[in-house]
Amino acid sequence: MNESELLKKILPVFHIASDVTVPPGDDCAMLEFGGKYLLAAADQLISNVHYLYDTAPELVAAKLLKRNLSDIAAMGGIPRWALLTLAVKGRSDEWLERFFAGLEDCAEKYNTAIVGGDLAGLPNDLDCASLTILGEAEPDKVCLRKNGQVGDHIMVTGQLGDTFYTQHHLNFIPRLKEGRFLAENGLTRCMMDISDGIASDLPKLLEQSGKGAVVALEKLPCCNGCTVEHALSDGEDYELLFTVAPEKVDLLYKLWNFDVPLSCIGKITEDKGLIYTLNGKAIDNLEITGYEHFNA
Amino acid sequence: MNESELLKKILPVFHIASDVTVPPGDDCAMLEFGGKYLLAAADQLISNVHYLYDTAPELVAAKLLKRNLSDIAAMGGIPRWALLTLAVKGRSDEWLERFFAGLEDCAEKYNTAIVGGDLAGLPNDLDCASLTILGEAEPDKVCLRKNGQVGDHIMVTGQLGDTFYTQHHLNFIPRLKEGRFLAENGLTRCMMDISDGIASDLPKLLEQSGKGAVVALEKLPCCNGCTVEHALSDGEDYELLFTVAPEKVDLLYKLWNFDVPLSCIGKITEDKGLIYTLNGKAIDNLEITGYEHFNA
Repeated sequence: MNESELLKKILPVFHIASDVTVPPGDDCAMLEFGGKYLLAAADQLISNVHYLYDTAPELVAAKLLKRNLSDIAAMGGIPRWALLTLAVKGRSDEWLERFFAGLEDCAEKYNTAIVGGDLAGLPNDLDCASLTILGEAEPDKVCLRKNGQVGDHIMVTGQLGDTFYTQHHLNFIPRLKEGRFLAENGLTRCMMDISDGIASDLPKLLEQSGKGAVVALEKLPCCNGCTVEHALSDGEDYELLFTVAPEKVDLLYKLWNFDVPLSCIGKITEDKGLIYTLNGKAIDNLEITGYEHFNA
Repeated sequence: MNESELLKKILPVFHIASDVTVPPGDDCAMLEFGGKYLLAAADQLISNVHYLYDTAPELVAAKLLKRNLSDIAAMGGIPRWALLTLAVKGRSDEWLERFFAGLEDCAEKYNTAIVGGDLAGLPNDLDCASLTILGEAEPDKVCLRKNGQVGDHIMVTGQLGDTFYTQHHLNFIPRLKEGRFLAENGLTRCMMDISDGIASDLPKLLEQSGKGAVVALEKLPCCNGCTVEHALSDGEDYELLFTVAPEKVDLLYKLWNFDVPLSCIGKITEDKGLIYTLNGKAIDNLEITGYEHFNA
């Protein structure tokens, strides 16, 4: 089974407590606590899977935190706290100190406090790092994968693809400001981050919304002129994918005051399934699968 | 550096946000949110470090959750939610399904909802699992390592040592009911769980309290007649270590209505340092170090 298939089997195993406002399956869970709403998500980084073993430890630590911050951004939330566990072998004290200094630098930049964690040794030369992010959102503003409506424009921030050679997979900026802006201004209620490529991630949004989509390939913001196949299937864009009601699109462009480009790449449809078009004609011979992080 | 030395270097790196009521360094952090107080801790399990590779997956999953529940117990708190990340290689779909079923069984037993997580593949045949636990506590009841007072009796629940051959390290019961009872009844404000052995853990409590202790070796509840060295230094007891003011000890024994035995093993002293005695005579030739999980 791949990760998606496995998750379909696993997620129904877990009971949903009454204080779990958004259950597992979105970018974050949302939990009612003290009359407010906590966001929670966890993600991990493995050496030679998510980064090369000789990557600077500061960049590794920042990537781990930023991956999680990207999940908070995708809910339109505000990050608050994070907990880290790290299992390593063969890393020097200097490497570890640089890792933690890099984590703190990144945490300060995004107003996140590191509040706990654990260190363990591994039997093999390998790093295995896991981080849980906690944040805050409002139930009337939070952006969920299930909220896509027929006729909504499908938008993406930034550029897609070519994430490895450009070092984007390490140097990306989580779209916290942009995600918060969209949520606060009511411009979307349907958002996720792109971590496995649109070809893999958009179907997750469509499935939860119970809708389909048409995506116009000529409108994809392909990074450095990469192919559309690459822009659709490369992992680790960490851009936002969201839907906007047609009557709000003008307002969105008017208010959008960020350096990050916006692209409208398609529309939500009643008919389920994802159709790619090129200049208005349906394309059905693309070889695209999305990026698979889980390959045990 | 060992884990304690490393933590002493790492912890000061992190800033303490104003909403962090109890910073990293205790069993859990305590975070103010919506006028209530959230507990948060993270811990991990590595195959062939924390369990043998062929251990039943249900037991592995339960151990991971229970280790974290033990940290909630040590604060006198109530568990609420958990997030899991799992990185594996060479595990069958059946193994994974059993792991998650075991996790849910344990979560239901302790009123904890699994609300998020991630799966990833590893390059080596290895499991690396990390769990973050979230719970609730009250600032006027929470039990912290720093609250030990001179003259307090030092108490432990259950028996110590021999955790591997008895399978206690897999089958232990996190002392949630007992921890909550102690906190709710104001019987202690100073508690931690014993995960690395008293010889390693009690000094952490003493350091944060700025105090010392005398421990009477003949009073140690040695499991199956194991040696005092073993009872002091074996890892994974997951029992509670707490202090009780002398005037509350009678009330504690009167109210204690659990199957779990209680032992008074010593007293908190003004003089710093940890002194072991045997029938009133100081012993200074014990070879005890505590259990070291971090050995990178």
